[in-house]
Amino acid sequence: MVVIAEDSFDYKNAKTACGVIRYGFHEVLAVIDSACAGMMVKDIVPGISKDIPIVSSLEEALSFHPDCLLIGVAPRGGALPESWIDIIKKSIEAGLHIYNGLHTFLTNDPEIAALAQKHNCFLWDVRKPEKDLPVALGLCRNATSYLLQTVGSDCSVGKMTAALEIVEAVRKRGVSIEFVATGQTGILITGWGQPVDAIPGDFMAGAVEKEIMALDGKADIIILEGQGSLLHPGYSGVTLALLHGGAPDALIYCHQSDRKEIARGYKIPIPPASIMCRMYEEAARLIKPARSIAVCLNTFGMGEADALREIQSTMEESRLPTTDPVRFDPKIVVDAILTDYERYRTQKR
Amino acid sequence: MVVIAEDSFDYKNAKTACGVIRYGFHEVLAVIDSACAGMMVKDIVPGISKDIPIVSSLEEALSFHPDCLLIGVAPRGGALPESWIDIIKKSIEAGLHIYNGLHTFLTNDPEIAALAQKHNCFLWDVRKPEKDLPVALGLCRNATSYLLQTVGSDCSVGKMTAALEIVEAVRKRGVSIEFVATGQTGILITGWGQPVDAIPGDFMAGAVEKEIMALDGKADIIILEGQGSLLHPGYSGVTLALLHGGAPDALIYCHQSDRKEIARGYKIPIPPASIMCRMYEEAARLIKPARSIAVCLNTFGMGEADALREIQSTMEESRLPTTDPVRFDPKIVVDAILTDYERYRTQKR
Repeated sequence: MVVIAEDSFDYKNAKTACGVIRYGFHEVLAVIDSACAGMMVKDIVPGISKDIPIVSSLEEALSFHPDCLLIGVAPRGGALPESWIDIIKKSIEAGLHIYNGLHTFLTNDPEIAALAQKHNCFLWDVRKPEKDLPVALGLCRNATSYLLQTVGSDCSVGKMTAALEIVEAVRKRGVSIEFVATGQTGILITGWGQPVDAIPGDFMAGAVEKEIMALDGKADIIILEGQGSLLHPGYSGVTLALLHGGAPDALIYCHQSDRKEIARGYKIPIPPASIMCRMYEEAARLIKPARSIAVCLNTFGMGEADALREIQSTMEESRLPTTDPVRFDPKIVVDAILTDYERYRTQKR
Repeated sequence: MVVIAEDSFDYKNAKTACGVIRYGFHEVLAVIDSACAGMMVKDIVPGISKDIPIVSSLEEALSFHPDCLLIGVAPRGGALPESWIDIIKKSIEAGLHIYNGLHTFLTNDPEIAALAQKHNCFLWDVRKPEKDLPVALGLCRNATSYLLQTVGSDCSVGKMTAALEIVEAVRKRGVSIEFVATGQTGILITGWGQPVDAIPGDFMAGAVEKEIMALDGKADIIILEGQGSLLHPGYSGVTLALLHGGAPDALIYCHQSDRKEIARGYKIPIPPASIMCRMYEEAARLIKPARSIAVCLNTFGMGEADALREIQSTMEESRLPTTDPVRFDPKIVVDAILTDYERYRTQKR
């Protein structure tokens, strides 16, 4: 896979690309961004160890023999500029499948759709909702698998990453666990899921319920990737739809430790973890009680001593097992999950 | 206008038709439903005083010389059956505009779209979201108009109806008030609004914010029609998006008095009004504090003595002014609104 991020590849915007690089089943061969050409991805995004070059053009990227092109970053301004459309068309002509994570759908563009058909390329509009989604029936309240959900203080604090780290660590302990993706990055990583932020309001919770119930009983634990935050004026509706549609038994609270208020000028302070956990528990309880059982911090950008201090103080304040599961051993969080899972199993019997 | 409700016109399904009959700017001339042909709308839906015949075919309906056809009821099963599509096509050929409140969009059907263009008919897909909606920025937190919102115990308890009755009564008191529709019936009644239940998750709150801010300062009071319920596993996300995007100063709690649990088998009991009001206040407070200031009951189907008893007991339990604004004088609720509005104005100065 090659990734197009022309004039857009920076740390803030690289969330999808980095998720796919870290956890995806495709190898990322190059990123296209003429503004940063000549650098490596790891020069711009710390925490990536692989050597992935940034190149200046599609032609250069094609020399790596990719199978597909990923549009994982919205271009500045939102809408697709002519120059990107040109790159997409040339990619199709070169035989690449296109994976598109934007809210703008390529399959709705007759010219691009016809071109893709002609060249036998697959256009994957990751965020395009499937048809005939149901209204949630509250079925997850009676699931047999143990349902976990990551919830957070804000967008982009690490809810998906924490869930993926938990999946890996829980599997190593011999307990079966499935991850249900609810955002474009998660869906690109796993190949399936529900793009809840793009689903019409009436069907958000139903879409999540459908995915979970399709897996119910096939794994000991099902973990649902949360979205947004109950504190976020733009996204709280999506957050609550996941909480009520997914009806988790337990919550993992995720937070980026150096974030004091939610991002992008809303002027909304983030309360301490204990208050956030209670807020999520109260919202969940309207449909089904859920317990906060652990905290995952994203200490990215902090020195190690500061990170450890932050983890310690969050653990004391929240009275919950806390760690940064990417940076440190996730054991303390996984122990909390498996203990609560055992309690759940015992009660079910 | 004529309304198609073939094999679907009953009290439960007639919500949109009845709203449009009661409050809309179009006169409803006839309802098409061969199963009930020969009866009057008021024979099936009590509370409608106008004489509107139910006829068996489009041909009969056309004898009333309508300008447009309303599809306000989803046909049984959800998808549009061939027989309905046939009626829609014949209506277009007869020169009728089509108002469509379903989640299935007629403008997406190339054949129907071409036919409408040929006959110079307008296809209004009421629930089709507009393009390029914004993510909410939290702007309604700083609105200058006094923002009211109706919230409810469940779907179809009377949130829109209460808001429309309040609008009429407040205007009579010489205070300017605007109604912002958020559902298909409200949009069909006023001719504009945001079909929040059909808007992709990320943009629900932003859509509402956009409508309110476009009116801000142009009326003393803006009242937003709430949707769903925080208790509803399928729709709570939509409800919260309205509460956070709309950021009201005050809430009117709406409830259908004989409903003890939310509809359609979810087995979720509805707590007393005082608890529901507190739940909404707590959810609102995450973005902006809002006070519950009155309760509107829908006592439809109860005898008058029972209705009055129910209003009295709800008033005592909630400690809030309570009435059924359709059945009785809405004065007590309007007084509460105007008093709170005065408090708000004084504080703003």
